[in-house]
Amino acid sequence: MSLYRTFDSADLRIWLSTQITLSTQLGGKPEEWSIKEVSDGNLNSVFLVHGLDSSLCCKQALPHVRVAPDWPMPLERALYEARYMRATEAAVTGLAPKLFHYDADLFLLVMECLSPHTVLRSALIADQVTPGFSETIGQYVAQTVHTTGWTTRPFEEGSRLLADFAGNTALTRITVDLILNDPYRVCTRNPEPEPALLSAVEALRTDRPLHAAISRLQNIFLTCRQALLHGDLHTGSIMLHERDVRVIDGEFATMGPIGFDCGLYLGNLALHACAAPQKMPAMEHEMRVFWAAFAEQFQTLVSQGGGDVGGLLEDDAARLTMVQDMLLGILRDTAGFAGLEIIRRTIGFAQVADYSLCPDDAARTTARKRALEIGRTLIMSAEAIESPDALFALLCPSPATGAPSLT
Amino acid sequence: MSLYRTFDSADLRIWLSTQITLSTQLGGKPEEWSIKEVSDGNLNSVFLVHGLDSSLCCKQALPHVRVAPDWPMPLERALYEARYMRATEAAVTGLAPKLFHYDADLFLLVMECLSPHTVLRSALIADQVTPGFSETIGQYVAQTVHTTGWTTRPFEEGSRLLADFAGNTALTRITVDLILNDPYRVCTRNPEPEPALLSAVEALRTDRPLHAAISRLQNIFLTCRQALLHGDLHTGSIMLHERDVRVIDGEFATMGPIGFDCGLYLGNLALHACAAPQKMPAMEHEMRVFWAAFAEQFQTLVSQGGGDVGGLLEDDAARLTMVQDMLLGILRDTAGFAGLEIIRRTIGFAQVADYSLCPDDAARTTARKRALEIGRTLIMSAEAIESPDALFALLCPSPATGAPSLT
Ligand SMILES: Nc1ncnc2c1ncn2[C@@H]1O[C@H](COP(=O)(O)OP(=O)(O)OP(=O)(O)O)[C@@H](O)[C@H]1O
Ligand SMILES: Nc1ncnc2c1ncn2[C@@H]1O[C@H](COP(=O)(O)OP(=O)(O)OP(=O)(O)O)[C@@H](O)[C@H]1O
Repeated sequence: MSLYRTFDSADLRIWLSTQITLSTQLGGKPEEWSIKEVSDGNLNSVFLVHGLDSSLCCKQALPHVRVAPDWPMPLERALYEARYMRATEAAVTGLAPKLFHYDADLFLLVMECLSPHTVLRSALIADQVTPGFSETIGQYVAQTVHTTGWTTRPFEEGSRLLADFAGNTALTRITVDLILNDPYRVCTRNPEPEPALLSAVEALRTDRPLHAAISRLQNIFLTCRQALLHGDLHTGSIMLHERDVRVIDGEFATMGPIGFDCGLYLGNLALHACAAPQKMPAMEHEMRVFWAAFAEQFQTLVSQGGGDVGGLLEDDAARLTMVQDMLLGILRDTAGFAGLEIIRRTIGFAQVADYSLCPDDAARTTARKRALEIGRTLIMSAEAIESPDALFALLCPSPATGAPSLT
Repeated sequence: MSLYRTFDSADLRIWLSTQITLSTQLGGKPEEWSIKEVSDGNLNSVFLVHGLDSSLCCKQALPHVRVAPDWPMPLERALYEARYMRATEAAVTGLAPKLFHYDADLFLLVMECLSPHTVLRSALIADQVTPGFSETIGQYVAQTVHTTGWTTRPFEEGSRLLADFAGNTALTRITVDLILNDPYRVCTRNPEPEPALLSAVEALRTDRPLHAAISRLQNIFLTCRQALLHGDLHTGSIMLHERDVRVIDGEFATMGPIGFDCGLYLGNLALHACAAPQKMPAMEHEMRVFWAAFAEQFQTLVSQGGGDVGGLLEDDAARLTMVQDMLLGILRDTAGFAGLEIIRRTIGFAQVADYSLCPDDAARTTARKRALEIGRTLIMSAEAIESPDALFALLCPSPATGAPSLT
């Protein structure tokens, strides 16, 4: 018999009171704890528990999509999120909440409560961020992919990660459908586009050169298993308070192309700039800060060697050349996946709240059309990108000229 | 307590007599069966059992390398060979022996006995092959990678294969060490090269541009998980009789780059041509037959669609373009892995018997030097190859000019 049941605050209080380590950590008596549900994502319930001495965040998987109860979703995603946190925790201390406990029967994670942190997307919308926050995200990606890739560890470790995460198919199916396919086909999951956007949406459905370029990215996503990805690194998966920036919500973790994590993050910064064009310079600054931090850290860490890839390279210069080749490949993948993310968050399922910044419908339509153009251009140009500057120019085209044309 | 024990013929006879299906299939009484050990590979024991009605081939993993008893080797490789045979059997009926039974305690496979087949390498050395045998191998590779890749099946199936084979690290470690590293470094596993070859071997150990190109191939081998590979597709893993050609010995199976299987096969044909230069035209013919059969079948099968990669492509022309792009990538990987195989089988552990065709020491040294040059050129030129003809020109350089130079 399964021990799983969906918790409300009362159930959680009772359960926590039976967990000696956790209840001691909280401090005080169970009836003195305050428990608040803060679920705002699409999938899970999240409770913040404040005791007399400390606080905990409890995240439980539901057997369905939280915002769409008729869409079933296997509970095992909580297991993969726990595995992801454990596989990366040594590499990202202070860049992610600490996982204290995972309950395999309840599909429940108990982790560090981030307080008074807010979700980056909301902070951006409220214009309450300390510039430069993207440096931490760049470091985070470099640290996680370094600790889980093939260049600095014996391949047996990467093989174990392949085995441990290959089963996370329920969430990878979401990526495959929602990011890599749905926006480009008729599909009941797609919300009805606003009338002014209809022709742009229809154009994406019949755009054969675009579909060919997307097929290439689909192939990269599924075949190119470079490192363990977060898999859902958008601005809603990041919490911050002043200079303390943390990545949460690793339930989409899968071995995949490093440019996927980078592309989702940069794509979401670009979306914000589309919704609020006056913030384009600030977003471009964040993109540059992200990439500089990522590339520098990746280069430092990966050129240390120690893995089966590059093991023959004896001098630093040779390893550096290899790492720079890898970075160029990651940069190109980043462009493609950023383009896919921008389009899916504009017309697909789970659109972004950033568009609420648009003052009126007309401005929102303009912003969305612009996002679709930027997305398409990124996807079509990805393979030819030669430098980070070229990527930023595509992500943040100057408003006067619009998205760079393809010809 | 483990039930495993290493079988001799007597043990095998007793065990088979307890297996109703198998002993009925053999026919006659156990004492009427003839059992012959035919182990000639490096790793396992193989027995052929002839009953009154039919024959069986029994292959058992030993806890060590058969030819190097002090080199321990996990028994689980037999499990991966059985999994590989099952994962591919529907796609390669008649191109591989049928697996009748796998015993998980004994790490023992019972399969169709191929008779009067001989191992392709021996048949080549004895000059007893029917030309065109490589057509079957091309079809075999196309069928196996089609049935296990991402283009014609939902990605969940490929993910299951990733999980099922990621644990085959003991044999993948052999590939990583023996093919991708050892020939280019000082290592006790490498046999002492003949004096006349010493400077060529030393040159490979200090050849930095070569090491950089090999690092790229190491990266491809470990990150590019396109399909389930046989993983050891040399001419010793093929048995044939007239036009009946079968692939055996899938214990190195792993998800990896399709060009790895192609490269090992073509590399072994090229090795044979190096050892017996008068057979170069015949080997070039086989290479062309292999690639034509592989490419045609791959194109036909993969452009059928049905998988998550390319699912947006609605017309045949678009899918064909995608498949041709894939084929070009496979062709380039094939060149690189062929080069690695040629070098490792010439100076590394587990060299090929083909060199016994050389009439004397001087001829053998010439043949080996030539092989090393061809191998190096393939590795260095792989990325720039544009057509199958360009690959064949590198694999079979005209004897007058020697290996094409790199400048
Ligand atoms: N460690 C934490 N500390 C404080 N609050 C948190 C923590 N983790 C999550 N939260 C809050 O709970 C919300 C939902 O968390 P999370 O994004 O992990 O859930 P989700 O349902 O998986 O979301 P998604 O649909 O984006 O996958 C976050 O937006 C945040 O407000
Ligand atoms: N199905 C079969 N029918 C007849 N003979 C077979 C069959 N399978 C294997 N053999 C014989 O047994 C020998 C060893 O088999 P196989 O190559 O599978 O073993 P191995 O020890 O794994 O070799 P390797 O070192 O190449 O990995 C073959 O060369 C062949 O002579």
